[in-house]
Amino acid sequence: MPARARHRDLRGDILDAADALLARYGYQKMTVDDVARQAGVAKATLYAHFPSKEAIALGTIDRMIDLLVAELRQIARSRGDATQRVERMLVFRILFLFDIAQKSAHTLDDIYAALRPQYKIHRDRYMQSEAEVFSEVVAEGQRAGAFRSGDPLEVARAFILATSTLTPFSLSVRELGEREAIKRQIRRIASLLIYGILRQEPP
Amino acid sequence: MPARARHRDLRGDILDAADALLARYGYQKMTVDDVARQAGVAKATLYAHFPSKEAIALGTIDRMIDLLVAELRQIARSRGDATQRVERMLVFRILFLFDIAQKSAHTLDDIYAALRPQYKIHRDRYMQSEAEVFSEVVAEGQRAGAFRSGDPLEVARAFILATSTLTPFSLSVRELGEREAIKRQIRRIASLLIYGILRQEPP
Repeated sequence: MPARARHRDLRGDILDAADALLARYGYQKMTVDDVARQAGVAKATLYAHFPSKEAIALGTIDRMIDLLVAELRQIARSRGDATQRVERMLVFRILFLFDIAQKSAHTLDDIYAALRPQYKIHRDRYMQSEAEVFSEVVAEGQRAGAFRSGDPLEVARAFILATSTLTPFSLSVRELGEREAIKRQIRRIASLLIYGILRQEPP
Repeated sequence: MPARARHRDLRGDILDAADALLARYGYQKMTVDDVARQAGVAKATLYAHFPSKEAIALGTIDRMIDLLVAELRQIARSRGDATQRVERMLVFRILFLFDIAQKSAHTLDDIYAALRPQYKIHRDRYMQSEAEVFSEVVAEGQRAGAFRSGDPLEVARAFILATSTLTPFSLSVRELGEREAIKRQIRRIASLLIYGILRQEPP
C-alpha cells in the first residue's frame, strides 16, 4: 500500500518538524507556517493531517507516549520475575520522560499551559495505555503468587499515580532537578510500592 | 506585648481578605487596593506587612500549609500505632488540600502560573516541614520494630512525593475529580506505601 505508506511518512515528517520547532522555540512561538516549511510540505497538506497547531502539538505528545508504551511493553514481556520487571518499568518510564523533557526545555510546560482542557483527555488516554501494560505484569506476579491479590489495573494505576510527581508533566524540568536525583527518587518510591504488593509470606 | 499582638492581627486580617478575594476573583484580577479595602487597612499599612501582591498570595499559601503542618503534627502525636497514624496523615493531607481547593476554584492554578519561580522556593519549604512531621512517625515505627530501617526523612519525602500527584498543586480541581474518587486513590496509594515499609517478619 504505497499511498498509505506515503500518508504515514508525511504525518511523521510533520511531527518531526514540530518536535524540532517546539524544542527550539516553544509552543507559543511556533506557527503552522513554520511547521509546514520545516517539514517541506504545503500548508494544505499539513491541514489534511492536522486541523490546527494544537492538534500538531498534541500529535507530538501522542507519538512520544506511543513510543514509551511500546518500550514498556517490551520490558513487560522480557525475562526476569515480575518484581524486577515492574521496577524496571517504573524507573524507565520516569527517565524516558525526563530525557525527552531535557532536550526541549520549554515544550511540555508551554503546551500544558496552552492546551490544558484538550490535553486532559489525551492524558487520561496515556494513563490508560500505560496502566494496561503495567497491569499485565501485576497480574502475572499475582498468578505466580509473588504479589498480593487485587484488581491488577487498579494496582497499576496506583503505581503510575504514585510516581507521576516525578514526570515533566507535573513539574517543569528545572524543578525536576538532576537526573541522578530523579533516579534515586523513582527507585526509592518504586521499591516502596513493590514491597507494598509483595505477599508477606512466600506462597 | 500589645504591639506585637496588633501586628499579628493585621497580618491575619490582610490574609483573610486576600483569601476571600482570591476565592472570589482569582489571582490575576485581585489588586492590592482590593485587599487593603477588604481588610480595612490603609495601603501603606498593608505594604508594611507585604511588599507586593505576590507576597500576599504566597502569604495565604504559607498560612494554609502552616495550618496543615500543625494538623499533621497533631495526628503524628496522637494515639494509635505508627502504621495507622501514617495512613491517617497521608489521607488527611490530600483531603485537606482538596477541600481548600474546592472552596476557591481558580486560586491555586492562577497563583501557581503567576508565581512559579518564587513559589518553587516556598514549595520546597512546605515539603520540608511536612516531611519532618512524617519522619517523626516513621522513626517511631522503626524504633517499635514495625517499619523497616532507612533514613526516616528520606522515607517521609518518598511518601509525600508518591502522593503529591493527588494534590491541587499538581492538578487543577476539575482534573482531580470527585472527593470520593480522590479518597479511594489516596487510600490505595497509602496502603501500598505502608505495606512497603512494614517489616516482612515481625521483630
